[in-house]
Amino acid sequence: MSDRPALDQPSTGKLYGIGVGPGDPELLTLKAHRLLTAASVVAYPAAADGESVARAIVADFLRPEQLEVPIILPFSPRQSAQPSYDRGAAEIASHLQGGRDVVVLCEGEPMLYGSFMYLLDRLADRFPTEVVPGISSTLAAAAVAGLPLTYRQDVLTIAPATLDRSTLRDRLAHSDAAVIIKLGRHFAKVRSILTELGLLERARYVERATLPTQQIRPIGAIDPAHVPYWSLIVIPSANNPRDRQEA
Amino acid sequence: MSDRPALDQPSTGKLYGIGVGPGDPELLTLKAHRLLTAASVVAYPAAADGESVARAIVADFLRPEQLEVPIILPFSPRQSAQPSYDRGAAEIASHLQGGRDVVVLCEGEPMLYGSFMYLLDRLADRFPTEVVPGISSTLAAAAVAGLPLTYRQDVLTIAPATLDRSTLRDRLAHSDAAVIIKLGRHFAKVRSILTELGLLERARYVERATLPTQQIRPIGAIDPAHVPYWSLIVIPSANNPRDRQEA
Repeated sequence: MSDRPALDQPSTGKLYGIGVGPGDPELLTLKAHRLLTAASVVAYPAAADGESVARAIVADFLRPEQLEVPIILPFSPRQSAQPSYDRGAAEIASHLQGGRDVVVLCEGEPMLYGSFMYLLDRLADRFPTEVVPGISSTLAAAAVAGLPLTYRQDVLTIAPATLDRSTLRDRLAHSDAAVIIKLGRHFAKVRSILTELGLLERARYVERATLPTQQIRPIGAIDPAHVPYWSLIVIPSANNPRDRQEA
Repeated sequence: MSDRPALDQPSTGKLYGIGVGPGDPELLTLKAHRLLTAASVVAYPAAADGESVARAIVADFLRPEQLEVPIILPFSPRQSAQPSYDRGAAEIASHLQGGRDVVVLCEGEPMLYGSFMYLLDRLADRFPTEVVPGISSTLAAAAVAGLPLTYRQDVLTIAPATLDRSTLRDRLAHSDAAVIIKLGRHFAKVRSILTELGLLERARYVERATLPTQQIRPIGAIDPAHVPYWSLIVIPSANNPRDRQEA
């Protein structure tokens, strides 16, 4: 009996962290779409001016009667985002305590560098919680570029360009395939590593994957001065078994 | 004018490789669902007895009037699958030449160890082709287990358990987070590596992620004699910035 809730215990709402995918609204899953359209409260990370990439992806699915909870994150990466998540978690908790389900939008896949991880961390021990996986931009970039990433025994590495040069070089040198994320001002460093490792021709630059403004280009065609933070580089495996006459 | 097709050129069908996700049919994307239900021809990898995991995932969405093209793959991994893909590609090509769109089902994400890569390789230079990303079981496993995989500067490695011991150990030793796939009879080797690296407590075993029969268990609770090939181990990052009082 001890693990069964008392009958008079008020029932709380359920917390859902849903991945909304890389940008194309049609890359929401059927499940994310169902939960989103049914939720009474929808929360999402947002900039100080209220702009939210995650909300923009699902804008056409939102209804006016849904209550929206923006979680305002600091502009500068040097400022800690943790107090913002503390405040966001408190506001979400009040809705859950009131018996309302809350859907939290997360770009891409919630568990891969996702903002939802910081809310999960603060709320999952107190409220029923479910994470609904989403299409990660890291893998979607390979799909839209038509680049098979990994075959059979291949190892894939997903690494941020923000790593120091020797660490990033070492990780790429020991992978069959890789996706390098968070390029921004680190592009020139990454390009030089790829040149050293003989990976320049195989690699492709991908910006805004799955959006109408999507760019897929050779590394040599990119101006390092104009590389957004959320662009990435895909390095597909060279181990196509057909080329090697293997199974 | 030269890059515009002649008016009397017969139009071919379009080839779609769609990721159908890890198992829960509701984890198809809205786009994959739309393309699948609109297609006149649906192809998928299948075993010699006709059984197909990819087809089973979308079975409720198929219509009797859709033509199905199973691509029968050899049972033994020692037998080359390449002749099967040659035959499958030829059959798909005949439908495309006849002006019919063909949707090829692929478990998980098509570009991550996906069967569709072998058809793309054979057909994309002759027919208009589009790859629609799907939810990869590697990332979905972390989501259903409620395990944040990677924070901020973390490196994620996806590696098959089929690698030799020293290579796999080295890759895991140099990652912040990892997913080890294709466990099967390699489970005991992987468990011993995790023990050596002090990762046993942090790692979780995940079987049939997102299906009703899903299993999420500590490594120590698993009998190595009963580990299916398609099960995996998730090793989440230990670098939660909240624990470190960082941003």
